[in-house]
Amino acid sequence: MSFADDAKGVYSIATTPFLPDGSLDLPSVDRLTDFYQECGASGLTILGIMGEAPKLEPDESRTIIRQVVKRARVPVVVGVSAPGFAAMHSLARDAMEMGAAGVMIAPTPSLRTDEQIVGYFTQAVEAVGADVPFVLQDYPLTLSVVMSPSVIARIVAALPSCVMLKHEDWPGLEKISKLRAMQEAGELRPFPILCGNGGMFLDFEPERGADGAMTGYGFPDMLVELIGLHQAGRRDEAHDLFDAHLPLIRYEQQLGVGLAVRKHVLLRRGIITSDAQRKPGAALSPTARAEVDYLLARLARRDPRAAQAASAA
Amino acid sequence: MSFADDAKGVYSIATTPFLPDGSLDLPSVDRLTDFYQECGASGLTILGIMGEAPKLEPDESRTIIRQVVKRARVPVVVGVSAPGFAAMHSLARDAMEMGAAGVMIAPTPSLRTDEQIVGYFTQAVEAVGADVPFVLQDYPLTLSVVMSPSVIARIVAALPSCVMLKHEDWPGLEKISKLRAMQEAGELRPFPILCGNGGMFLDFEPERGADGAMTGYGFPDMLVELIGLHQAGRRDEAHDLFDAHLPLIRYEQQLGVGLAVRKHVLLRRGIITSDAQRKPGAALSPTARAEVDYLLARLARRDPRAAQAASAA
Amino acid sequence: MSFADDAKGVYSIATTPFLPDGSLDLPSVDRLTDFYQECGASGLTILGIMGEAPKLEPDESRTIIRQVVKRARVPVVVGVSAPGFAAMHSLARDAMEMGAAGVMIAPTPSLRTDEQIVGYFTQAVEAVGADVPFVLQDYPLTLSVVMSPSVIARIVAALPSCVMLKHEDWPGLEKISKLRAMQEAGELRPFPILCGNGGMFLDFEPERGADGAMTGYGFPDMLVELIGLHQAGRRDEAHDLFDAHLPLIRYEQQLGVGLAVRKHVLLRRGIITSDAQRKPGAALSPTARAEVDYLLARLARRDPRAAQAASAA
Amino acid sequence: MSFADDAKGVYSIATTPFLPDGSLDLPSVDRLTDFYQECGASGLTILGIMGEAPKLEPDESRTIIRQVVKRARVPVVVGVSAPGFAAMHSLARDAMEMGAAGVMIAPTPSLRTDEQIVGYFTQAVEAVGADVPFVLQDYPLTLSVVMSPSVIARIVAALPSCVMLKHEDWPGLEKISKLRAMQEAGELRPFPILCGNGGMFLDFEPERGADGAMTGYGFPDMLVELIGLHQAGRRDEAHDLFDAHLPLIRYEQQLGVGLAVRKHVLLRRGIITSDAQRKPGAALSPTARAEVDYLLARLARRDPRAAQAASAA
Repeated sequence: MSFADDAKGVYSIATTPFLPDGSLDLPSVDRLTDFYQECGASGLTILGIMGEAPKLEPDESRTIIRQVVKRARVPVVVGVSAPGFAAMHSLARDAMEMGAAGVMIAPTPSLRTDEQIVGYFTQAVEAVGADVPFVLQDYPLTLSVVMSPSVIARIVAALPSCVMLKHEDWPGLEKISKLRAMQEAGELRPFPILCGNGGMFLDFEPERGADGAMTGYGFPDMLVELIGLHQAGRRDEAHDLFDAHLPLIRYEQQLGVGLAVRKHVLLRRGIITSDAQRKPGAALSPTARAEVDYLLARLARRDPRAAQAASAA
Repeated sequence: MSFADDAKGVYSIATTPFLPDGSLDLPSVDRLTDFYQECGASGLTILGIMGEAPKLEPDESRTIIRQVVKRARVPVVVGVSAPGFAAMHSLARDAMEMGAAGVMIAPTPSLRTDEQIVGYFTQAVEAVGADVPFVLQDYPLTLSVVMSPSVIARIVAALPSCVMLKHEDWPGLEKISKLRAMQEAGELRPFPILCGNGGMFLDFEPERGADGAMTGYGFPDMLVELIGLHQAGRRDEAHDLFDAHLPLIRYEQQLGVGLAVRKHVLLRRGIITSDAQRKPGAALSPTARAEVDYLLARLARRDPRAAQAASAA
Repeated sequence: MSFADDAKGVYSIATTPFLPDGSLDLPSVDRLTDFYQECGASGLTILGIMGEAPKLEPDESRTIIRQVVKRARVPVVVGVSAPGFAAMHSLARDAMEMGAAGVMIAPTPSLRTDEQIVGYFTQAVEAVGADVPFVLQDYPLTLSVVMSPSVIARIVAALPSCVMLKHEDWPGLEKISKLRAMQEAGELRPFPILCGNGGMFLDFEPERGADGAMTGYGFPDMLVELIGLHQAGRRDEAHDLFDAHLPLIRYEQQLGVGLAVRKHVLLRRGIITSDAQRKPGAALSPTARAEVDYLLARLARRDPRAAQAASAA
Repeated sequence: MSFADDAKGVYSIATTPFLPDGSLDLPSVDRLTDFYQECGASGLTILGIMGEAPKLEPDESRTIIRQVVKRARVPVVVGVSAPGFAAMHSLARDAMEMGAAGVMIAPTPSLRTDEQIVGYFTQAVEAVGADVPFVLQDYPLTLSVVMSPSVIARIVAALPSCVMLKHEDWPGLEKISKLRAMQEAGELRPFPILCGNGGMFLDFEPERGADGAMTGYGFPDMLVELIGLHQAGRRDEAHDLFDAHLPLIRYEQQLGVGLAVRKHVLLRRGIITSDAQRKPGAALSPTARAEVDYLLARLARRDPRAAQAASAA
C-alpha cells in the first residue's frame, strides 16, 4: 500500500528558495511547506528536474529533504533523476530513510527506443530498490524522450513499484484517454495520473481522466479548487476559474523564464523572501516583471486570491 | 520599396484545404482568400512550413500560388523553404512571376552556429535572387535553429532583401524588446516584426514593439481587432479580447494536432468544406472535437464572432 | 519474388554528378552506371538521402531514374524518402513505371516511439503501393530515429513488401547478430541485410551475418572483392584488404564533407568530369584535397586499383 | 604561467576502474596513473564526461582526484562539467586544492547561439574562479553544441584562464587549420590544441597544427610515438604507425560501447583488474570481445606493444 493508492488533487512542486547571495533560504523552505499545505495540497514534490535541484550540492539536497519531510503532514515525493545510478541510489535511499513517501524518476535524455526506455526504468528500480514507490515522469518537451501509452504500460506491468504517472506530454490529452481506456479494458493496472506542464490543460485533463495536478504554479489554492470543481461535476465553473488564470499560467509556462515568474509570484504572495536563482538562471527583465504584475492585477479582479499579490506589486 | 515597408496588422497564414479524398479543394482556396481579406488581413502567407506545403506536389504548389495571388488584393507571401536551393530557386521565381509580393524562408534544421545561419541565408538569397523581398522566419521550437538578436542583425545587415521578421521564438518577448532597442540605437535598420506561435503572446507582443501577427488562428477578424486596440492604446480592452480567446488559442497551439483544430474551426465557420488533411496528419478524436466545440460555445458568450461557429457545432 | 530475394554483394549508391555550373552531368551518369557494374555491383541505389537528391527538381529526379534504369543490367533501387506522402507516392510510381526494381524509404526525422515508426512505414507503404518492394533504411546518426531489432521485426512482419534492410546504425554490429538470431529462431522472416556507413565496419559486418554493402565508397571494386573474400571464408585476406582501405574509408565517412571526398575520388578515377556539388555543399579545401591524394598514393602501394587515381593527383 | 603554456604530446584520459561489484578499484587507479606516465604521457585528464564520472558520488570523485594527483608527476586536469555551477564550483575548488593543474569544462547541451555559449563559459569561469586554468572542450557529436572558430576566439579573448582547447569536433580538420590561421594573423592568442575523438584523425591533425592528443585510447605509448614522429617530420612513418592501429581505434571509437572496448584492452594489457562498468553501461558481447582480440592479434604482427595484450586473449 503506497501513498499513491488513492492520490487525488494537487501535488505541489516546491520551488527551491535562495537568498540573493545564492545560499539556501531555509526559513522560506518552511514557509513554502506550510503554504502548500494550507492551500490544500495532497502532497509535495521536491527536487524536480525543472527547478534548481541540479544546482544543489548533495548535502544541500539532503538538507531540503530533511526539512520538508519533517514539517510536512502530506506525502513528500523526492525527484532523484541523475546522470548515474549511483547518485540516484544514494539520494533515493537517503530520502526514504528521512521519511519521504516515494521518489520521482524521469528518463535520461538519450533514450530512444521502447526497449531502451523500459530497460532504463528497470535499471533505475534496481538502483533505488524495488521497495521504493516511484512516480514515472513523462516530459518529452524537455527530455526528448517520448513514451507511448504502450511503453508506459510495459513499465507499469514490469515494475510494481511504479505507483503514479506524472503526465506532462504535449499534446497530451489523448494519452490520458488512451491510458484510462487501457485500464478500463483490464490491460493495465490502475494508477493515478497527475498532470504537469504548469497546468496549461487542466481545464480538460480531469475530464479525460486525470486525478489532479503535479505542478508548481504560484496559486496551488486555485488548483485545489479547480480539481474540486471538476470532481463535483461543476464543469462550467471549473472552466471559468481556469480561464481567469490562464493568462498567468501561460506566461509562467515559458521554458526557462517560467521559474523566474513562479518565484516572482511567490514573492508577491509573501511566501519566499527573494526570487533569486542560482546561476545559470533566467531573470525577469523589469518589463517582464511589470507584465506579470499586470496579469496579477487583472486576475485580482476575478480571483480574490490574487489581490494580495497584486497589491504587493 | 517593398510590400513590407509599412506592414502592420495581420498576415493570415492560409491553410491548405483538401477534400476528403485528398485532392486540393480549390473552391475553398477562394473562399479562404476572401475570408482573410474580409477579416481585415493586411496580407496573406501561403505554403508555410507548419501547414501542409511539404505534402504538395510542385505543380499543386503553383496552382495554389496562382489562384491566391490572382484573387488577393493584399500582398501574398509564399513560403519557399526547401531542403535544396534548386527547389527554393524555382519556387521563388515562379511565385514572383505569378505576382507574389515576396517569399518567406526558414533556416534548415541542421544549422547551429551564427556563421552557419548567416551563411545559409546568404546562399538562400543567391538562390531566390537578391531582388526578391523575403521574410525571415525565426521558429526555434520546430526548427531547432536558435537565432540571437545579433545573428538576426547580421542577416538584416548583410541582406538588403530581408524585409520582415516572422518572430515565433518562445519565450520571445525579450527578443522583440532587444531588436527594437537595437533599432532605436541605430544599430539595426528598421523592419516590421510580425509574430507567430499561434498568437499565444499577442497580448504583450505589440506592447514590446511588434507590428502585428502572422499566424493562422481561425479568428483573424479578432486578431485584426486586437492589433487595432493595441495601436489605439486601449490596453485593457486588448487584454480583455485576448483573454476571451486564449483558451482556444492555447488549444490550437498544440504541436501537430493544432492544424486539425484550425481546420475544424474554419469548417465550423463555414469557410472550408472539409477539415481533411493529407497524410501524415493528426486528426481530432471525437472527444477533442467536442472540446473545441465547447470552447467555441464558451467563446460565443463573449465574442459574437464565435456564435456562428458555435451553433454549427 | 523480388529483386532482393537472394541479394548479395554490393549495391553501389550512385552519386549525382553535376557540371561546375550546377547542371546535371548526364554523360557522367552513364559512365557512373557502367563503372559500378564493371566493378561487379549487384545493384544500384540512386537518389539516396545523404547525396544530393533533395537538391534536385522533380523532373531532374525523373531524368536520372530513366537514364540509369535504361542503362543498368542490375536492379536499380530508387530513394523516395520525402517530407510528404504525395511526393513519395508520385516518385515511387514514376520510378517503378520506368523500370526500377524497388524503392528505399527512410523514417522521417520526427519519429520517436516504436508505434510512430511502425505507423509511419505502414502509411508509406499505402503511399507507394503494397506491390512496390522497398528497402528499409535504418540510419539513426543522421535521421535521429532509432529502430530496435524488435521494431524492425514489427515492420517486416506487418509489411510484406519490405524486402531488404539497409543497415547503417552505429554502433551496429550487435544489431545484425540480433536480427540474424531472430531469423534463425523463426521469429522473423528472412531478408537480406546490406550495410552502409561508408563501409566503416565492413571487416566484421559480413561475419555477423550481413549479405554485403550498400554504400557509395569510391572503390566499389574493392567492396565486391571484400565481400567475396568473406563469402569464401578467407578471413585474414578480407581484413588485410579492408585495412588497406580503412584510412580512406574513414576520411570519406566524415559527415558533410564525405560527399566531396567521394566525388573527388571518382574524379581522380576518371569516372565523373567534375566534383561540383549543388549548394548547400561542403567543398574540399586544398589541404583536404592533398590529404585525400596522399591517402590514394599510400593506398596505391597496397592496392593497384588506386594507382590510376593516385597518378591523376 | 600555466601547465598548458607549452603543452605538447599526449594527455591520457584516464578511465575509472571498478571492481565487478561496482566499487572503485583504487589499486588499479594507481596502476593506470603509472602506466600512462610510463607510456610517456605529458599529462593526465580525469573525470571526463564520456567516461564514468557522472556515475560517481561526490566523495568518490574526490578520492580519485586525490589519489591521482598525489601519484602523478605530470599535470592532472580534472573534468568539472556539471549541470549546475554550484557543483562545478566545489569540484573545481576541491581539485585545485588537492593539486590539480587545471580543469576541463564542456558546454552544457542546451546551448545554441554564439552568445549563449560565450555567456555560459563566462559564468563557468565565475563559478570555478578566474585563477583556475581551464581546458575548453569542444565535442559537438555528443553535446550537440557547435562552436565555430569565431566563438572559440571570443571565449579565448574574453577569458584569460582558458589555456587549452580539447578539440573533438567531427569533421574537424578544417577547424584546426582555421584556428591556427587566426593565430598566425594575430587575431587570436596562442594556445595548445589537443585532439580527442579517440584519435580517429591523428594521422592528419598534427599536420594541421594540433599539438597532440587528449584521448584514452588503450595504447597511449603508440600515441606518444605517433606525435613524436609527426614532430620529427617523419610523415610516412607516422602514417604507417597510425594505419596499423586504425582498425582498433575505429572499433574503440563507437559511441557507448567504446568505453567497454577501452577497458577490455587495458585489462588485456594487465593494467586494470576488471573491465566492469557501473550501470548504465554497454558491455561487450562475447562476439565483440573476440573481435577486439582478433584486432589485437592482427596489430601484434605490426606493433610489438600489442603482443602482450594479444597473448593474454
